[in-house]
Amino acid sequence: MKIYETRTAPNPRRVRMFLAEKGVDMEYVQLDLQKGENLTAEMRAKNPLGKVPILELDDGTCIAESDAICTYFENTVPEPTLMGTDAKSKAVISMWQSQVEMALLLQVGMCFQHSTGYFKDRMVPVAEYGKQAGINAAKYLNILERRLELNTYIAGEDFSIADITALCAIDFARVVDIRLSDKHTNILRWYDLVNQRPSAKA
Amino acid sequence: MKIYETRTAPNPRRVRMFLAEKGVDMEYVQLDLQKGENLTAEMRAKNPLGKVPILELDDGTCIAESDAICTYFENTVPEPTLMGTDAKSKAVISMWQSQVEMALLLQVGMCFQHSTGYFKDRMVPVAEYGKQAGINAAKYLNILERRLELNTYIAGEDFSIADITALCAIDFARVVDIRLSDKHTNILRWYDLVNQRPSAKA
Repeated sequence: MKIYETRTAPNPRRVRMFLAEKGVDMEYVQLDLQKGENLTAEMRAKNPLGKVPILELDDGTCIAESDAICTYFENTVPEPTLMGTDAKSKAVISMWQSQVEMALLLQVGMCFQHSTGYFKDRMVPVAEYGKQAGINAAKYLNILERRLELNTYIAGEDFSIADITALCAIDFARVVDIRLSDKHTNILRWYDLVNQRPSAKA
Repeated sequence: MKIYETRTAPNPRRVRMFLAEKGVDMEYVQLDLQKGENLTAEMRAKNPLGKVPILELDDGTCIAESDAICTYFENTVPEPTLMGTDAKSKAVISMWQSQVEMALLLQVGMCFQHSTGYFKDRMVPVAEYGKQAGINAAKYLNILERRLELNTYIAGEDFSIADITALCAIDFARVVDIRLSDKHTNILRWYDLVNQRPSAKA
C-alpha cells in the first residue's frame, strides 16, 4: 500500500494528519506538481483527474480524493473515530467537513490558482475570480468564528476530520495572505488546541 | 422530520432521488432561492451557508449538504446500499461521488451562476470564469465516457450515489447548454439505464 502525494500541498496533508491520528504507517511517493509529474499517462491511469493524493492498495485499486482515502481508513482502522459514531454524528461531521472543504479550502485553492497563475500551463487563470474566491474564504472564517464560540471543535465536542480539513486550509491560506487576526478569538482558541496535536506535524 | 429545498435546483433532486431509492417518505418545505427565502436569519440558523437542501430532524438538529443528508439515511435505512458495503467499495464510491461533484456538478453550477448572473444580488459573477467552468464540465464528460466504457455504473458494477449525482448534474447542465452528444456513446447507454429508474422522477 502506498500514497502518491506532494508534501507541500494542502490535500495530502489532510490525509497524512488523518493517518497520524489513526497511527497508520504509510509509504509516500512524492510527485512534483509544477513539473506535471501528476499528469503523466501512468498517473492519469491511477486518477483520471490527475490530482494528489492517491492511495494505491496492494491489489492495485487506486483511490483518489482525500475524503475517500480517509473513508477507507475510517473503516479499516476504526479507532480513534474521526468521522462519527452513529447516523447523526456521521451526518453532522460530514456536513461540516463538506462546508469547510467547499467554502474554505476550495476557495483558498481557487484564490491561489487563479491569482498566482501557478498552474497556468494547464488551466486559464481568471484573476478577478481568484480575488472573489479569496473574499469567499475570508467570509467563511466569520461563520467558523461564530461556530467555535459555541463548540469546542468544528463539528461539536469531539475532534473530527472537519478540524483536520480546517487546519490544513487555514495554514495553506497564508500563501494567499489570508490570515487569522485578533478578531478571530474563537478560531485562535481552536487553532491552538488542534495545532498542538502531534498529528499536525505529519 | 422535514427537508427544506427548492424543487428545481440540482442538489435537492440528488437527495429526493436518494430517498426514493431508499423508499423514505419525506415532508418537503419549498424555498424560493431567487427571492432569497434561503437567506433569512431563520434559515441561516439552520444552515450558516444559506443553501438547500437542509434536513431538519425531530430533535431540531439541522443537517445541510446533500452528501451529509444522504449519509444520515444510508445509516438509518441501510437497504438498498448506495454508498458501499465494505471499506474498499465505500472508498471507491466516495471517490467517484466527490469527483462527479467537484469536476461536473460544481463546474456546471459555477458556469450557471457566473454566466447568467442569476444570484448577482449576493455574489459577483465573473463571466470569464463561468466560461472556463463550462469548459471544465465538458472535459469531465470525456473522463466519464471512458469510465463508462468499462463499467456498468460510475463506481463499478453497482448503482450508487455517484450515479445519482451525475444524472442530476447532466440534466441540470442543459440550462447552460452543455449536452450529451452522439460521441458520448457510453454515457448515453448509462444515462438511459439510470434515467429509467423510478427514482429519477423524484
